[in-house]
Amino acid sequence: MAVKEPLIITDKDQMRQWSRTMRAQGKTIGFVPTMGYLHEGHLSLIKEAHKHTQLIVVSIYVNPGQFSPSEDLSTYPSDFDADVKKLKAIPGGVDVVFHPHSLYDYGNSGRNGGIGVEREEKEREKAVVSCVEEKGLGHETWVRVERLEKGMCGKSRPVFFRGVATIVTKLFNIVEPDVAVFGKKDYQQWRIIRQMVRDLDFAIKIIGSEIMREDDGLAMSSRNVHLSPEEREKALSINRSLSKAKAKFAAEKGQVNCKELRSWVIQEINEAGGRVDYAEIVDQESLEAVEEIKSPAVFCVAAWFGKVRLIDNMEISV
Amino acid sequence: MAVKEPLIITDKDQMRQWSRTMRAQGKTIGFVPTMGYLHEGHLSLIKEAHKHTQLIVVSIYVNPGQFSPSEDLSTYPSDFDADVKKLKAIPGGVDVVFHPHSLYDYGNSGRNGGIGVEREEKEREKAVVSCVEEKGLGHETWVRVERLEKGMCGKSRPVFFRGVATIVTKLFNIVEPDVAVFGKKDYQQWRIIRQMVRDLDFAIKIIGSEIMREDDGLAMSSRNVHLSPEEREKALSINRSLSKAKAKFAAEKGQVNCKELRSWVIQEINEAGGRVDYAEIVDQESLEAVEEIKSPAVFCVAAWFGKVRLIDNMEISV
Repeated sequence: MAVKEPLIITDKDQMRQWSRTMRAQGKTIGFVPTMGYLHEGHLSLIKEAHKHTQLIVVSIYVNPGQFSPSEDLSTYPSDFDADVKKLKAIPGGVDVVFHPHSLYDYGNSGRNGGIGVEREEKEREKAVVSCVEEKGLGHETWVRVERLEKGMCGKSRPVFFRGVATIVTKLFNIVEPDVAVFGKKDYQQWRIIRQMVRDLDFAIKIIGSEIMREDDGLAMSSRNVHLSPEEREKALSINRSLSKAKAKFAAEKGQVNCKELRSWVIQEINEAGGRVDYAEIVDQESLEAVEEIKSPAVFCVAAWFGKVRLIDNMEISV
Repeated sequence: MAVKEPLIITDKDQMRQWSRTMRAQGKTIGFVPTMGYLHEGHLSLIKEAHKHTQLIVVSIYVNPGQFSPSEDLSTYPSDFDADVKKLKAIPGGVDVVFHPHSLYDYGNSGRNGGIGVEREEKEREKAVVSCVEEKGLGHETWVRVERLEKGMCGKSRPVFFRGVATIVTKLFNIVEPDVAVFGKKDYQQWRIIRQMVRDLDFAIKIIGSEIMREDDGLAMSSRNVHLSPEEREKALSINRSLSKAKAKFAAEKGQVNCKELRSWVIQEINEAGGRVDYAEIVDQESLEAVEEIKSPAVFCVAAWFGKVRLIDNMEISV
């Protein structure tokens, strides 16, 4: 089969123009937003997108709006050339790689001309801010999914979901897709995007795609590259303990105390050498913590191994 | 000239379908969002829209998301039949009147099934909420223009601009216009929408349209209908004092102390029998308060007359 050479677009107006031209021809567009450093997990999202639409756009953009200044924006891994190679190798390929330089730099439009630098600095000092405010670019509009953003990852990363919902809104407005695919590894993110699309009336169908794992069970993540061999070994404790917890639930026919199950998983990961950020059993829809599993639930975990924070989860059906 | 009969659409999917069909035919769409009870001010926005696009959509929807439970949602005036008559009488008419029943009722999608009513109530008690949360419909995504929303009307109406930015986002996603027109009577709202459109990459051109006034100078507003004749007479003090302030500025060739000018306007309105909510001289772009007028500024006022809160403003060029 001939390899499809994707069009690489860096300009947002050009991106939108491409989508509008295609739509005018009756074509449907699938969209997979990524931060690059692609692995099999990303590629599975693209394969999923191929099932729904004729054309595929993949964005590669490390979004400063979802990192706080103290987080790992500067060390987030990237390799654009390798990413494009991987995209070409997918059956059916992709049509466009959208790879903007910055999505928060609006040039000297003069709209923020009156805002003193001094005041911006004062505001940054007192508010919880992302790397976007830190750079002082004048961007100030944020989309918030006020309830779902509060728990789990939202607790330890207070600007994270605000940044995710905002960049996804921006990308949706630029790419104008019919379908967008998100990985269920980022379970809370997936739920937030689905809620946002409903609440803001985006005409976009959101698909959740299953977690991809390495042969040893580690959930695929761009951040895995930063794990030392020892840390990686320790990190296997997440999937191992979640799988055992799920088996326990099945064996005890649902008569499981969530509090005990959580404590057990936390202990397993800590004993393996990780540092648990959270381990919560929540309702699949509301992401509210549950005490007993009576409706479809999901066991979500975040844990540190050295300087790397990993997340994983496992759905538990009833 | 034949009177154009507008298409009345109440369903959001049908609305979007109409826009997409028109766009596929190469037509451009202008959009004027309103809360109905139309007056000459609204009609001037529509006339402005006619200068920019081939087709015109007017929405009539009283947005519960921008009212707090203690505000005047229940008494906000409406007269749909009279509104349609007025729209027909405009030269060129309008093509669609979008008149949805509710834009926050998503049916029993089950997505919020897991959220207990009790918890919703607890959240409503502690947070600043709008009439949307009060109804417990499960909507939880809000667009915030974090800096511009803070001052002036945002101080006394803390949910107002959150509600405006959110409903405008929803309407933009439903109507998908090329151009949208907003009145400069709601100066802060206009600036917020312009900022939001830039920051969220909406492909929509925002036009600001000048304030329309009654013969006696009162800025047109749907709320004017609630003024008693005496209150209306008192309310003239806003425009009268703003005009005098502007003349003072011109006479003194810009050597005007804003603090004194503000005090003087507040005194004039209070002496006339109004109760000033705020009177601020701010930069036209940043809406930051200024002490001296060195760049284009705008004098914004909000004041109560009986149970009616009115706003007005006057641009001051240098």
